[in-house]
Parts: sequence; C-alpha cells; structure tokens
Amino acid sequence: MSSVQALLAEVGAEVGDRVRVVRDDGLVVEGILMPRPRGGEYLVVKLDNGYNVGIDIKRIKEIKVLAKRKPSVRAEGGALPRRPDYPLVKIIGTGGTIASKIDYETGAVKPAMSAKELVEDIPELLEYADIEAEQILDILSENMMPEHWSKIAEAVHAELLRDEVKGVIVAHGTDTMTYTASAIAFAIRELNKPVAFTGAQRSSDRPSSDAAFNLLASVITAVNAPFAESVIVMHGETSDTFAAVNRATRTKKFHSTRRDAFQGICEEPLAYVWPWTGDMKLVGKYLRKRSNEVPKLKNSFEPKVLQLKAYPGMDPELLLLAKDKGFKGVIIEGTGMGHVPERVVPAIRELTDSGIFVGITTQCVHGSVNLNVYATGRKMLDAGAVPLGDMLTEVATVKLMWALANFKPEEVPKVMLDPLEGELRDRRTLNLYRLPYKA
Amino acid sequence: MSSVQALLAEVGAEVGDRVRVVRDDGLVVEGILMPRPRGGEYLVVKLDNGYNVGIDIKRIKEIKVLAKRKPSVRAEGGALPRRPDYPLVKIIGTGGTIASKIDYETGAVKPAMSAKELVEDIPELLEYADIEAEQILDILSENMMPEHWSKIAEAVHAELLRDEVKGVIVAHGTDTMTYTASAIAFAIRELNKPVAFTGAQRSSDRPSSDAAFNLLASVITAVNAPFAESVIVMHGETSDTFAAVNRATRTKKFHSTRRDAFQGICEEPLAYVWPWTGDMKLVGKYLRKRSNEVPKLKNSFEPKVLQLKAYPGMDPELLLLAKDKGFKGVIIEGTGMGHVPERVVPAIRELTDSGIFVGITTQCVHGSVNLNVYATGRKMLDAGAVPLGDMLTEVATVKLMWALANFKPEEVPKVMLDPLEGELRDRRTLNLYRLPYKA
Repeated sequence: MSSVQALLAEVGAEVGDRVRVVRDDGLVVEGILMPRPRGGEYLVVKLDNGYNVGIDIKRIKEIKVLAKRKPSVRAEGGALPRRPDYPLVKIIGTGGTIASKIDYETGAVKPAMSAKELVEDIPELLEYADIEAEQILDILSENMMPEHWSKIAEAVHAELLRDEVKGVIVAHGTDTMTYTASAIAFAIRELNKPVAFTGAQRSSDRPSSDAAFNLLASVITAVNAPFAESVIVMHGETSDTFAAVNRATRTKKFHSTRRDAFQGICEEPLAYVWPWTGDMKLVGKYLRKRSNEVPKLKNSFEPKVLQLKAYPGMDPELLLLAKDKGFKGVIIEGTGMGHVPERVVPAIRELTDSGIFVGITTQCVHGSVNLNVYATGRKMLDAGAVPLGDMLTEVATVKLMWALANFKPEEVPKVMLDPLEGELRDRRTLNLYRLPYKA
Repeated sequence: MSSVQALLAEVGAEVGDRVRVVRDDGLVVEGILMPRPRGGEYLVVKLDNGYNVGIDIKRIKEIKVLAKRKPSVRAEGGALPRRPDYPLVKIIGTGGTIASKIDYETGAVKPAMSAKELVEDIPELLEYADIEAEQILDILSENMMPEHWSKIAEAVHAELLRDEVKGVIVAHGTDTMTYTASAIAFAIRELNKPVAFTGAQRSSDRPSSDAAFNLLASVITAVNAPFAESVIVMHGETSDTFAAVNRATRTKKFHSTRRDAFQGICEEPLAYVWPWTGDMKLVGKYLRKRSNEVPKLKNSFEPKVLQLKAYPGMDPELLLLAKDKGFKGVIIEGTGMGHVPERVVPAIRELTDSGIFVGITTQCVHGSVNLNVYATGRKMLDAGAVPLGDMLTEVATVKLMWALANFKPEEVPKVMLDPLEGELRDRRTLNLYRLPYKA
C-alpha cells in the first residue's frame, strides 16, 4: 500500500468523497477527492470551480471527509447492474502484466488476475462507464500465436455488434501488443467503434503499476473517442499525467521497461487522454469515425510466415528453410532501404519461383524501403521481392499472415500494397523524426 | 553542378579565395569563401572577425575575387607531397554510397569512385590535414562479411602503427556501418588514435550529397579528437550544420534515407563537429584517450553466428537450424525484456546442450534485457540463454563472432558480459529516451 493509500485509509477517505485538506502552511483545500495511482506522491482534489489541485502528501497536516461519495455500483461476484445513464464498455482480458501479479513462490510475475478482478480493484473505472469484463485467454503476450489473434478478433467483433457497447478494451501483454492490435485492425473490417488495447509495464500489485492509469485512459477512449480504429492506449510520458492513443499499425514497443514504452513511428497519436480529469485531446487524423456499420469478421491468419532480419553474413539457408518447411510467406527486415546481402538474392528467387511471397521492410526505425536506388535492391526486385514502403516489420508480418489466409495467392501482392489500416503511407506525412540530443 | 557552383565558376572564385559579395539590398560582405556542399542555397563567407555569414545566392548582385587563396597541394595522380606543418590522416575506402555514383546504364547507384578520387573532389579536406587515401575494398555495405571486417581491421591497424598518422578514416556504406565499426572496436585492442567511420546517404555526384560534409567532419575528428575510439561521424541534423560523433557500439542507423540517420542509443555523442569552421565540441565521456600504446590486432571473426528476431508464432525450427548447419552461436532479439515464445525454449536448451552460445538482446530500441521478471524469462535462463543487458543486437552479433574466434568456448560467456567497448552499460546512465511528440 502506498503512502497515499495509507493516509486515506487512516481517515476513511475514498475517491469521490468531498474532503477538506489542510497543508502545513495553513492552505485549506476543499473539493472532491480524485483518483490517483497507487504510489503517487500527490493527493489530487477537484475544486468546485472545476480545477484540480495537487498537494504533496508529505505536507498534509489534516484530511477530513466532509461527505461520502454517492454510492456507486461495484463489481462483486458476477455481472454488474446496468446504470441507465452510463455508457457500457467491455473489457476483454487476455493475460499479460496488466492482469498479473508476483508469484510469491518463484518470485517471478505471472498472469493471475482476471479482468473482473481488475474492475473490482479499480472502481474509478465506473466513474466513466458501466464495465463488463470477460477473461478469454490467460497468456503472456510473448506466447500469443496467430490462432489467439483469431479468437480475440471473434470476441471483440461479437461485442462491437451489441448496440449498447460503446467501445471495447483488450487488456494484453505489452511485448507483442503491436502484433495483436494490428491483427484486430485487419481482421475486423468496417470497424464501427474504438477498440483500445492496453497493458501494463509493471504488474498490478506493484506500487508503480501503470495498470489503473492505462485502463482508466482506455475506458475514456472507448467512451469518448470519435474514431473507430484499433489503437494502443498507454502512458504518454513516464509520469502519471497523460496517455497517448496511438494507431495500432504505426506503433512500436520502443523501450523494454519504461511505462511510456509505446511510440507512434513517424505518426502523431490520434489523441491524448488525461485519466484524472477525463479530458481527451484529438491530435492525429483518423481513418474511420464511429458509425452504424456492421463490422465484418475476417479473422483467419496463416501462421506459416517467416520473419527474418538481414545482417552481414546472413546465411541463405535461413531463407531456404521457408521452402523446406512449407512456409507460405516471408518478411525480410532489410538493412537501410531494405537490402539483403547479395548472396541471399538467389534464395529469394528460389522462394518466389515456388510461389512464396517475399516482402521487404527496413530495420531502420524510420523511413521507407526503396529497392530502386542501389544495384542490390534492383536484383532483389528482379528476384521477385516486394518492397513494403514504410510498413513496420511487425505489422507487415501480421498483414501477410492475414492476406495469405483470406485472399487467393495471386491477390496477396495487391492486398499487401493496399493501405487498409494506415500501415502503409505515402511520403507526404508529418516529419516526426527526432534526434535525442542537440548540439 | 549546383547553382552555387555555377555562380562561383562564372567569376572564377574558389573556396579559400578572399571575395567581396554585394547583395541586392546593397549589403557588402568581404572575407574568405568557405566550403559549402554542392546544392547549398547559401554562400558562406568567413569575415575577418571570425564570424561566418550566409548569403542567399538568389540575392547576390555581385561577387568579386579580391585575392586567390594560397596555393594548396591537390591530389593529382599518385601520393601527395607531405607538408611539414600538417598532420597526416589516412582515408581507407571500402565502397558504399560515399564512394559511389549513378550508373547511367542501369540508373542505379553503384560503387565506383576510389577514395583517392574523393580527395581530389573535396580539396577542402586538405585545409585540415595531409591526406593519404587507399581503396582496399569496393563493395556496398550490405555485402560486407565478417571476412571483410578482418581485412579492414588489418588495414586500420597497420596505419595506427605509423607515428605520423594522426587518425584513420574508414569510408563505408551506411547500411551495416554499425556492424563494421563495432567489429573494428573489438578487433583492435588498446586503440591509440581515433578511427572515424563515415559514409553518405546520397551519392557523391548528387547535389544533396552528404559525402563532402561527412568526410570533412571525419578529418577534423581524426586530427583533433582527444579520444581513441571507433566512432561513426555523420550528419547531426538534416541541414549542413554539424556532425555527430557517436561511439560505434552505441549507434544505430535509425532512418533509411535521411542524412542524419545515425543516432546514439541512449548515449550522448562523444563530440559534435562543425565542418565549415573546424570547431569540435566534446560532449560524452570517452573510454580511452589518445596514447602511445601499441594497438594489438585480434581480428578473427567466426561467421557462423545466427541472428534471429523473436515474433509471435516463431518456429523453433529456425533455432534448430543453428544446430543442423554447424552454427557456433545465436543472438536472439527477444520481445520486451528479451522474451521468446515459450514453445521456442526447448530449442534453446537443445542448442546450449550442444555447446552453442545463445545470447539474448531486446528488439525494443531502448532498454535492457531482464530475464528474471517473468516466468518465460526464467525458463529461458534455465535453458542456458545468456541475457546481454542493453547491448544492441547488431553489436552483440559482432561481439559474439569476435569472441567465438578469439577465445576458448568456455570463456565466451564471460567475454560477452565484459564491457569492453561501451557496448554494455550499467543502468546509471543519462536518460536520453525521447518521445517524438508532446501532449
């Protein structure tokens, strides 16, 4: 329990209560106690004029509860009663850190908490919506397979068909969140509502957990976002200020441990969300708005796709494995504009001659593939390799698995180069390339 | 020929000449004509007070040459005569865009120009040093193999032994520059002088070429840097202002086409260099200073190292290929803190049981591997995988090739975890993680 929690428990104060706080210098603040993440060092009180005030907990002399909050429903046992004035948000749990706690036997983190338990744990979610929770999988994201994407897509699709559901949240491990969120972007056509993927970089029972913050931001997104896209909602900076809502197909897990690990790659977030106030600021252009369309499910994925990263001395055997083992497609993350060592080119030819699709992305974080500039690239084109522009390798892999499963082989190249979900853009985009330092 | 060049040719003005320029609004500027890249839109004149002034060429009314520059040696034919007061810098050409021009038959860029030709083309280099140039390879960097690293290391080492050589420059393709520059960092022990890798994102005969700028910055680095490290010297921002000098083992080609494509990963540049003025600003901490040590050559590399990137549905067959085909080591770029799908773990065990080293890095751009946090990571550790901290995948691959060739198998794990060239750092480093946007 954090010091804020301890302090509040001591005086019996809960989020939503009307409180009076006295600071050590005599400042008196009166208002509604706002939700704060466990481990925060500030108490936030919403004043009657609408402004929020943060008070350093070390400087608090006295807290008094003036009035208890209006009793609100809590998740106890099964389903929650619907409140007529509240929108409904569905949370689909799949496992991952957001739904995990430390296993005190082995000392490691393992998935354990159900989505329903999360709702019980974060009652603030109910301030924005009625919540339905369902745990459909319980696996860490590194173990997600294309077959799981199909299952998640099916569950999300079923919820999107329900009129009363305002938006869907998928609680997911962060490691492969870009993959699954992109899979859903492709697998559900004519999306009609926002689908917000969220997760945690720190498990829910750690004081620094980002689970509550991210879930709260996702609920606000599900309820208020005007767009119907598959997005990733995670911390926008390391402190608990705002969350960034990034398009799934342009997002990368950029840091292994930081809470603000997810970045859009040369794409602005669609929106920022401030979970403590419920504010949302729209930023980037969205592809599709909320609608009454009936979304279609196209959720098959061909798992036999090889993803390879080119490097000096790369062995052509790696590529030929695709042919030997019956793979249907290959994505090669080339160097620079998409190159592979020239010695690998004959293997590309051998694959394409066998009807295996070979797509090329770049291992540079930013920028596009272009196989027309250098001699090696031209030879790759001659061998039948398909350059995939600025598509992220993760997204290209998902899209190829999807295209191979849902279209005829001869349609696959066309589908891959058709910008369906913002995954492939022309060059006329905002310049968001940044250097981490300045001379 | 750019418009600046045309303009200067017209009045017979050359870099280094004393000129008088009149602008359309009557402004008169007198000073020394400074080098500018082909294609620049500004003429730069160094005033007598030391300041540089840029004048929009579209606004120039008149240019007059007041005095020709002091005649300087030029590379014509074979070796250049040594000037007693100038330091000597050796440029070793290996191919790549910096030494390439457009092949007007196929329309693609191919390596063609020798390092010597480059010197002849950029006489400004001679303002800072006497230049020796030697072309030892002529290949695009995507075709560099570990055997080429050995050859480059040998050539660089031979130059470092010469007292009169102040520093060595390696002109190299950009695609795999991090690999080769890191290979040299490991292959030459007790480095005594700076070794500056440089290249170009645009070929030398294109107006926007960065070849001259980068080579000039590299010469200044080779002459003036107080450190003895293998570094990458490339544009520090997209315009022709300054170059960043980054430690090879912490650098990544971050963009497929931009001139400021190279970034240090959570590491400040060792220095910035302003090629037009010759200024150098030292920034990051360096590992080794210039010395009179005699560098040792340890330039063998074991090419049979597999580099694989983990992804959902990754096939264990990919890993088992290493055993079937006689590979000596594997670097797996895991998700998040270094995870692989759990189904791959038994294959790791099979490899390590056969004496094959399996090292783990992260595919997140930033952050460290940690296999102690999640259950999957623990299982990977049990299977004998070695977490490689924050080592970049590219650098881990090079280091493993080097360690396998120069140490006994039982020493390899220790060597891999020994921070030799800044490739592996503890957590107490500067925070240089940046988000590309701000709410």
